[in-house]
Amino acid sequence: MIDGSILIGAEQRQRPAKFTGHNAATGAALPNSYSNADVQDVADACALAADAAPALAALSPNDRAAFLESIATHIEEIGEELIATALAETGLPRPRLEGERGRTTGQLRLFASEVRAGYWLDVTIDPALPDRTPPRADLRRVNVPLGPVAVFGASNFPLAFSVAGGDTASAFAAGCPVVVKGHPAHPGTGELVARAIADAVAASGLPAGTFSYLPGTAHELGGALVADPHIKAVGFTGSRGGGLALAAIAAKRAEPIPVYAEMSAINPVVLMPHALAARAEALGPAFVASLTLGAGQFCTNPGVVIALDGPDLDRFIAAAAEAVGKAAPQVMLTPGIRAAYDKGVAALEGNRAARLIARGTAGEEGRGVAALFETDADSFARDPALADEVFGAASVVIRCKDMDALAQAVAGLEGQLTATIHLDPSDEADAARILPLLADRAGRVLANGWPTGVEVTWAMVHGGPYPATTDGRSTSVGTAAMSRFLRPVCYQDIPAALLPLAVRDDNPWGLPRRVEGKAVTA
Amino acid sequence: MIDGSILIGAEQRQRPAKFTGHNAATGAALPNSYSNADVQDVADACALAADAAPALAALSPNDRAAFLESIATHIEEIGEELIATALAETGLPRPRLEGERGRTTGQLRLFASEVRAGYWLDVTIDPALPDRTPPRADLRRVNVPLGPVAVFGASNFPLAFSVAGGDTASAFAAGCPVVVKGHPAHPGTGELVARAIADAVAASGLPAGTFSYLPGTAHELGGALVADPHIKAVGFTGSRGGGLALAAIAAKRAEPIPVYAEMSAINPVVLMPHALAARAEALGPAFVASLTLGAGQFCTNPGVVIALDGPDLDRFIAAAAEAVGKAAPQVMLTPGIRAAYDKGVAALEGNRAARLIARGTAGEEGRGVAALFETDADSFARDPALADEVFGAASVVIRCKDMDALAQAVAGLEGQLTATIHLDPSDEADAARILPLLADRAGRVLANGWPTGVEVTWAMVHGGPYPATTDGRSTSVGTAAMSRFLRPVCYQDIPAALLPLAVRDDNPWGLPRRVEGKAVTA
Repeated sequence: MIDGSILIGAEQRQRPAKFTGHNAATGAALPNSYSNADVQDVADACALAADAAPALAALSPNDRAAFLESIATHIEEIGEELIATALAETGLPRPRLEGERGRTTGQLRLFASEVRAGYWLDVTIDPALPDRTPPRADLRRVNVPLGPVAVFGASNFPLAFSVAGGDTASAFAAGCPVVVKGHPAHPGTGELVARAIADAVAASGLPAGTFSYLPGTAHELGGALVADPHIKAVGFTGSRGGGLALAAIAAKRAEPIPVYAEMSAINPVVLMPHALAARAEALGPAFVASLTLGAGQFCTNPGVVIALDGPDLDRFIAAAAEAVGKAAPQVMLTPGIRAAYDKGVAALEGNRAARLIARGTAGEEGRGVAALFETDADSFARDPALADEVFGAASVVIRCKDMDALAQAVAGLEGQLTATIHLDPSDEADAARILPLLADRAGRVLANGWPTGVEVTWAMVHGGPYPATTDGRSTSVGTAAMSRFLRPVCYQDIPAALLPLAVRDDNPWGLPRRVEGKAVTA
Repeated sequence: MIDGSILIGAEQRQRPAKFTGHNAATGAALPNSYSNADVQDVADACALAADAAPALAALSPNDRAAFLESIATHIEEIGEELIATALAETGLPRPRLEGERGRTTGQLRLFASEVRAGYWLDVTIDPALPDRTPPRADLRRVNVPLGPVAVFGASNFPLAFSVAGGDTASAFAAGCPVVVKGHPAHPGTGELVARAIADAVAASGLPAGTFSYLPGTAHELGGALVADPHIKAVGFTGSRGGGLALAAIAAKRAEPIPVYAEMSAINPVVLMPHALAARAEALGPAFVASLTLGAGQFCTNPGVVIALDGPDLDRFIAAAAEAVGKAAPQVMLTPGIRAAYDKGVAALEGNRAARLIARGTAGEEGRGVAALFETDADSFARDPALADEVFGAASVVIRCKDMDALAQAVAGLEGQLTATIHLDPSDEADAARILPLLADRAGRVLANGWPTGVEVTWAMVHGGPYPATTDGRSTSVGTAAMSRFLRPVCYQDIPAALLPLAVRDDNPWGLPRRVEGKAVTA
């Protein structure tokens, strides 16, 4: 099934410039080779997407939902080949990949149900007031899709945040065609999923330009995609450097477009004094379990722990150090990610303000070894390098001399995806001061848990103030992610026969509406 | 009451560098002089705004609504002095200014009712599922204000889109403190309204930093305001050059922030063949009435008319030319705006592709004289200068040889605030092709009316794709304008006592919610 094609709508293309995937565990080249898409492929895919846009925008909620469900079914039908391919390419364990496949298809089906529910259209009707002086026109507002969306998948979620991941699912749900730049770390996985989407496009009778897939290794490929005038928005998950580079390209276009880049975070964990006193020995290993999950390769990995200095924190650190010391070395997604991780850990080891507490057990060459450091709040405030994200299982504990210093450390943080607080009922008075500071810095605030693990639901926010993302007003996970790819249009006094179906008086799609400001359910 | 102060919260400051207002009709300097705010004033106002932000964010909907209503009342209490001051500074006629005052206070009261209605918080609750494998946490999403907002008022709406205009009202409604950069074309009007807001802040018991007012003439003042790290979003209405300059400053900050700049549009009007055949003589003067309203100084002024060439269009042009010929010269807002208008008209006169059809009657030196030009679709497609906005009562009629050429002219337009179509029932088949093209290019599409006149309602969209605005996903008029200043936060497993009131189980504010995806009204 995998032949290294570029998919331009229904057309399969090969290019002479090829690249290969690699076994993440051994570094060995995998058998298949993949075409590097070039600028002509970008231009063709985007033009085809623009052609498809009106038809996709005009689909009824039910037809669009059925398309999302068809993608889910086609992904499931790939079967074991998908898991086997992803296992080799990513080094992630089988249960994780099987779970991620379930999350991917579940996500598509949740968006399908949300499309049918219709809230995302935000239909708002102000009927004409002909007897008012002056008369008021008939005004009907509805959200419309922005147009073709470029999606850059993440290396760390080869299914749930890659070719058919959250960005693609929410863009389709909003009614936008999608052009995916495939991640070269999992080209086989990517192609299998891309073919499943292309099959769903055909099975649903949609225009071929609804979806295209551009595998490739060159940064220029992504740059050309974002610069293409047919592209109207960008979804990206990856490094800060990558996200900012794409945002700069988007801002320089003749028509600048929004870039939703989910980039980096150190996901602070605050341990409040009573919680720490009551369960330091339990918190330590629980923290390390979150830190080392998936070799620490989560956007929500807890990279910094903030707590009051003292014997309770010493107990937490001792318990965490013991757990880190027992942590097995883990295969990381790519040699590049592992090298960057080692470099980040080495920078902390070389930083005189940071003290190494523990490393995980060493093992085979080329695996990620967990690392735990500590520092004090003054040093943390002085040296921004201590707050740099180290992508992988490394974290820094910040010792604060009192609650003021702790509050200051929290207030000094950059924007984050998540912020965690561990507290007992006796901590609530102090927590009432800290919690708003956390909410001010993060898209998701959680208590007495760990930030890794992001539910795909209606209420989820996977986003946060800059530099966690380029647009803190948005989320890339959960049903609210659709709103990134929509804009409102107001129709004034348009004859009934020409009105979009969503805003017609007879409400053929049974949508929830607000009429003269009042909610009306269908 | 007017003494030229800078208002830094409750503090009134004077600076030695002064400027004066001018009588728009005569150009004479008006009696008062005004302090030019400096960078220290910017820094102080923004720091005070940041201090005020948490208290403003925590207000109940009812208290925040009462604050908006108090501003409206305080503006009304200024009485005749406000109208007299604005009359002198802007040259706009009394009925227009009295109407605009009503729109301004009505707008504040509509936002108050919208704040109470609570949809803007978008409360979304996914209750915990402890028995699921794995268990699902309790997730609660709510919108929170971005923080201090910088507002740059428009010269052409000294009340409804200036100090207490749509940007300020929607930012307060969203819970954001506001720092206004006063427009130097109406400094007395600005100061009167600023004092009314400051009085409302005091009367409502809110922190003084809720509102500051920085009068001044230097571009550097605005630049410093947008660059201040405490500012989290910007609202601007004005020229494309001004908006893009502020957006560039915002993008270069250590923490980039959104800039909502409403910049420029030529607001195309399409005349469909049957409508044109049926009522060319009526459409001509009706178009000119919209074109010359308020000396053409509306963002929604109809700057281009697109129609099929032929005898019906000749009749329309003749009728429009007659109306333009009778149009009286009008005082414009400032000598600078009038000079730019004359320059824009001269550029069209000097453009060999454009033919002058009519000018308004000449009159006193320094007034705006209406102008109507025509060209053909090929020239319009070739020369982007024909689509440049001329701010004032100037418009260009595009003759198209057939419906394909008309569709092409529409599809070639840049992003617009509005797009208008005049049609009769027999035009509907062709209109079904043209209308989606218009909706693709504009924030508001209207039939058989004129784009000037923007209702402040729930369904209104005053926005549109770039370059009409810097952010086509938003509107600056109508209740949806609030969403520009909000971002979502998800609270996960937060103890009940620490949850924001908006997302508590007992719903003390009686907000509409979605629970497990289902709408629940309070």
